[in-house]
Amino acid sequence: MSIVSPFRLALEPEAFQLLGGCTEILRRLSDMRDFFADEQAVERVLTSDDPVIYEFWKGECESSGGGVSYGLTRIHPGTVGREYHMTKGHFHTKDGDEIYVVVEGRGLLLLQTREGEGRTVEMTPGHMVYVPTGWAHRTVNTGDAALIFLSIWPPGVGHDYGTVARYGFPQLVVQGADGPMVVRSPSFQGGLMG
Amino acid sequence: MSIVSPFRLALEPEAFQLLGGCTEILRRLSDMRDFFADEQAVERVLTSDDPVIYEFWKGECESSGGGVSYGLTRIHPGTVGREYHMTKGHFHTKDGDEIYVVVEGRGLLLLQTREGEGRTVEMTPGHMVYVPTGWAHRTVNTGDAALIFLSIWPPGVGHDYGTVARYGFPQLVVQGADGPMVVRSPSFQGGLMG
Repeated sequence: MSIVSPFRLALEPEAFQLLGGCTEILRRLSDMRDFFADEQAVERVLTSDDPVIYEFWKGECESSGGGVSYGLTRIHPGTVGREYHMTKGHFHTKDGDEIYVVVEGRGLLLLQTREGEGRTVEMTPGHMVYVPTGWAHRTVNTGDAALIFLSIWPPGVGHDYGTVARYGFPQLVVQGADGPMVVRSPSFQGGLMG
Repeated sequence: MSIVSPFRLALEPEAFQLLGGCTEILRRLSDMRDFFADEQAVERVLTSDDPVIYEFWKGECESSGGGVSYGLTRIHPGTVGREYHMTKGHFHTKDGDEIYVVVEGRGLLLLQTREGEGRTVEMTPGHMVYVPTGWAHRTVNTGDAALIFLSIWPPGVGHDYGTVARYGFPQLVVQGADGPMVVRSPSFQGGLMG
């Protein structure tokens, strides 16, 4: 393995964009038709606009073999119907924990096991969140500004988005009269994910 | 592997202390006699006091097998002679990169290869620093308040403190008239570390 130089990186989308050539994900609403609960709201928005829901930049193109991958996510504020903007969410296909460090904004992390057990963890600056192997994870922006966080995971864990697309999460996070509310997803059928 | 629950953790010493039972390191000046350059200054301080230079809390006792270890370091402000408080510094004994996320304070990360090549990277909040395999790393607090940072690395990398104790780093960080200065260490003999 060759010696790679140490470096410093601002925890800002602009800095990660400048890394260039790495994995860059831009999810518009049209990419997430199967993920928001209110299908009519999705189609209503799409008649006039296709907003960017979130972006992700991976901070490493080729592994140095050193065992830490990292990336920055920005979820833009907003709702689709009453549901807050969020990431698709995924299971890891191999054993692999993940650490999130919240940079700015405010949100909720939704988690679930393949047996359909759900959890919710608050995301605020000055905190990390530990996501152990076996928990699918989806991040929801419940604030008025962008939610930005760093994630760090072992290389090669693999990502299963299909199970989440098919079954969803047990929880929805929706805009209530007094702010964000976590409600049970009406369409979720727990324990079917095998 | 059993299912471990997800959790949220404040990036503060008090929160890591409450984890309890994990690796906790407390380095006083008397533990670091071989690491500061000005031996007379070390002995002078030790006649009346044995100050805590830095503390470290590992945030995981037993590995969940998921491949990410993490810990929080606090370096107290101050100098020994003209040299700023710092960590011992170490090489990893196996391939393993490390990511630092600066929580508060201000400092410098010193790095060196086994061939004696040195680097310096600034540490300030809102930034991460990537430390690739092969670079010994020592963190120096150049500010007036505590320097606190999160570090994340793959489990089992191993730590070699002995090489640094014997050879030091190519650079010293000392208090100058206009603030911190990086100077060449008079005792460092590069390229001898094999």
